[in-house]
Amino acid sequence: MESLRPAKLGILGMGTVASGLINIMDFNKDKVHAAIKRDLTVTKVLVKNLDKKRNVSLPKEVYTQDVNEVLNGDTDIIIELIGGIHPAYEYIKAALNNKKHVVTANKAVIATHGEELKMLAEKNNVKLMYEASVGGGIPILNTIRDNLCANEFESVFGILNGTTNYILTQMTENGLDYGQAVKEAQKLGFAEADPSSDVDGDDAAFKLSILSSLAFGQRIHVSDIPKEGITKISKEDIEYAKELGYNIKLLAAGIKKENEIELSVHPAFIPASHPLSTVKNEFNAVYLKGNAVGELLLYGKGAGSLPTGSAVLDDIIHIVKNADSSADGNTAGKAAGGKIKNNLVVSNKGFKQYYINMEVIDKPGVLGSIASIFGKNKVSLASVVQRQKNGDDTVPLVFITHEAERKNIDAALKEIKDFEFVTGLASIIIVENFK
Amino acid sequence: MESLRPAKLGILGMGTVASGLINIMDFNKDKVHAAIKRDLTVTKVLVKNLDKKRNVSLPKEVYTQDVNEVLNGDTDIIIELIGGIHPAYEYIKAALNNKKHVVTANKAVIATHGEELKMLAEKNNVKLMYEASVGGGIPILNTIRDNLCANEFESVFGILNGTTNYILTQMTENGLDYGQAVKEAQKLGFAEADPSSDVDGDDAAFKLSILSSLAFGQRIHVSDIPKEGITKISKEDIEYAKELGYNIKLLAAGIKKENEIELSVHPAFIPASHPLSTVKNEFNAVYLKGNAVGELLLYGKGAGSLPTGSAVLDDIIHIVKNADSSADGNTAGKAAGGKIKNNLVVSNKGFKQYYINMEVIDKPGVLGSIASIFGKNKVSLASVVQRQKNGDDTVPLVFITHEAERKNIDAALKEIKDFEFVTGLASIIIVENFK
Repeated sequence: MESLRPAKLGILGMGTVASGLINIMDFNKDKVHAAIKRDLTVTKVLVKNLDKKRNVSLPKEVYTQDVNEVLNGDTDIIIELIGGIHPAYEYIKAALNNKKHVVTANKAVIATHGEELKMLAEKNNVKLMYEASVGGGIPILNTIRDNLCANEFESVFGILNGTTNYILTQMTENGLDYGQAVKEAQKLGFAEADPSSDVDGDDAAFKLSILSSLAFGQRIHVSDIPKEGITKISKEDIEYAKELGYNIKLLAAGIKKENEIELSVHPAFIPASHPLSTVKNEFNAVYLKGNAVGELLLYGKGAGSLPTGSAVLDDIIHIVKNADSSADGNTAGKAAGGKIKNNLVVSNKGFKQYYINMEVIDKPGVLGSIASIFGKNKVSLASVVQRQKNGDDTVPLVFITHEAERKNIDAALKEIKDFEFVTGLASIIIVENFK
Repeated sequence: MESLRPAKLGILGMGTVASGLINIMDFNKDKVHAAIKRDLTVTKVLVKNLDKKRNVSLPKEVYTQDVNEVLNGDTDIIIELIGGIHPAYEYIKAALNNKKHVVTANKAVIATHGEELKMLAEKNNVKLMYEASVGGGIPILNTIRDNLCANEFESVFGILNGTTNYILTQMTENGLDYGQAVKEAQKLGFAEADPSSDVDGDDAAFKLSILSSLAFGQRIHVSDIPKEGITKISKEDIEYAKELGYNIKLLAAGIKKENEIELSVHPAFIPASHPLSTVKNEFNAVYLKGNAVGELLLYGKGAGSLPTGSAVLDDIIHIVKNADSSADGNTAGKAAGGKIKNNLVVSNKGFKQYYINMEVIDKPGVLGSIASIFGKNKVSLASVVQRQKNGDDTVPLVFITHEAERKNIDAALKEIKDFEFVTGLASIIIVENFK
């Protein structure tokens, strides 16, 4: 094939991911050329500050403070790397209406407006891709779309938030408490000054919405995903997890059961022998079960300048390679937006194993009374750990249940809390057995 | 897009993988149709025995004993699932010459004749794909080709042989010795009656040749890959590995260092905290380092009817989707065959850490004498373990070295073996630190 004219990129924003993208385009120039038989050139970049010194090799004249120079200028593909919903959403819309292909790393926009944007892209006969919005450098969306077409997915489990995974790993490996681990993460740049969107599970829920929409072929609204963050995880929970052969992770889970999909973001006990248990610090991973391929795990860097830039660049390459092809190249093809193929009901019965940690006064008959309340509520117990006294006359009492519905667990605990010898209920955490 | 006529498949062989393929085509029919906007139909199947009862829903008239009915018949894509080099190689060649696309799971043919076949496919303007030849269901080749284009790869490490991984896992977890573990694997169908092509590393070397050719953009001949199998791994090695914080795996490794690629298949100590350490039993995994994406791991089922059928079906889908596209869709595009892009020298200096297990007579000065021979040969020691006596007056002495060239290790051991107090040299195994 002969060399074609360079493909022209307009970039919105010049932060960490954008500079990673530009640097990769420089040092892997030959590799990119070999893949697409043409060069990529950056024609316009929207920035706030024209005078800021930047660690990339772009000529000064590409920078502009006027978004219209990017959106209406001489560009083939618009790369949206501003983040946040507004004005990124409006810019993407304008770009698609101008018949420009769009690549974005913006999970918030795709999780909330993906459907509309995908239809707009189709209407304008251009592509909308967003590999970098989930799992950073891990090519999970494009692999599901391109290389696992032969599968219906039964479940998708992800460790999709590097900040919380870093915090939990530090608590597990270095015995830090939650507050110390957050400070450590902030110091190293793995957590923001206000870490709430990470530690409360919002970030993971956005990503699960995008990932599960693609895997299950059905629009999953982020508002349908119940979420629980990691702020209540104690040093004690971490220690019990280790003692019982588990690691605690913030898990994003989508499980198909007959005509229902159960979705949630929650802390979970993961068996130490499970591949997701070894995903440490800022790494991410996605663990899928397909009805043909069986179990599959993809593991890699969930954030960072170069890994995320790598995902953005692969979307750009995909667009350039397939620009003239009628094959449906949108990530969104079966994803957030687009044709609803399946018609599964989103539910959340929470039929799971649970870890329950409570504090009781140490006297005869306590365990028996509690166990019979569980039994009465159809909750059977898989294991019980009773530790030494707390110093006063209370003892911690830890249960792992067999699979039970969450409403039965809650009903049992409501009764159990009424016992005068139960002085506190510390934690309830899902124990994930990946069934 | 409107519905097109079905794509016609001719299948060579009807064993485990072929029946997996047919079954997936049945139960995921809708999913496949959604991906390619047309149906797949099997028009001819080459079998040895026309009367054999088979666990698939094909009409009797598709079966034939005449290969020409498949190769010259009314088929668009030939699926080669016979295995072995001959006559599979000749059949693939004939199919390509007949301008049929070819999908194969045949690692031996691709590793040895991939280059020629790829050029033949290009000449005839058809596609040759072989995802299932490496890593069973794991979509590793297509992910590298389609979704990691933006990366130059620095290293590729794989656990690519399920039989040896099953054997080593059983030795590690259940304390079996090598012979017992082989029998166990044979009983469960994870090892063949003659397991030599697995346990000697031949199978892994074929796969590494294909995988590293694609990752490094350069033809890697299987004859250039030194290999060492697992037949000499003892219960004692397994125990020392555990004690020192490692797991022993049969590792297929390709590492780029400046202008050289070091390739080999060998047993290795893998740190227990490394993601490859948790790859157990019949599972496979590939661990890559890209210069943009960083570390990446793909993990899944390396064999089996449905997982391997899934990989074959995804190649078929890829061909149907891109049949009219000029985009280079051959797996071989940058792989076994085709244009040699890089020009790296294949070398094998073995600059690694090593585990060395020897038996010595327990008397003063022994450790000092041995350590100074290592030092003289530029081998420095990272750790030493001396266990209790063997019952007689010999003791096992175990070293882990820092990184050293293999020739220096060998020179040191040659001298050390000459000491009268050294009664045996049990093992030398690479300790992989993934640097």
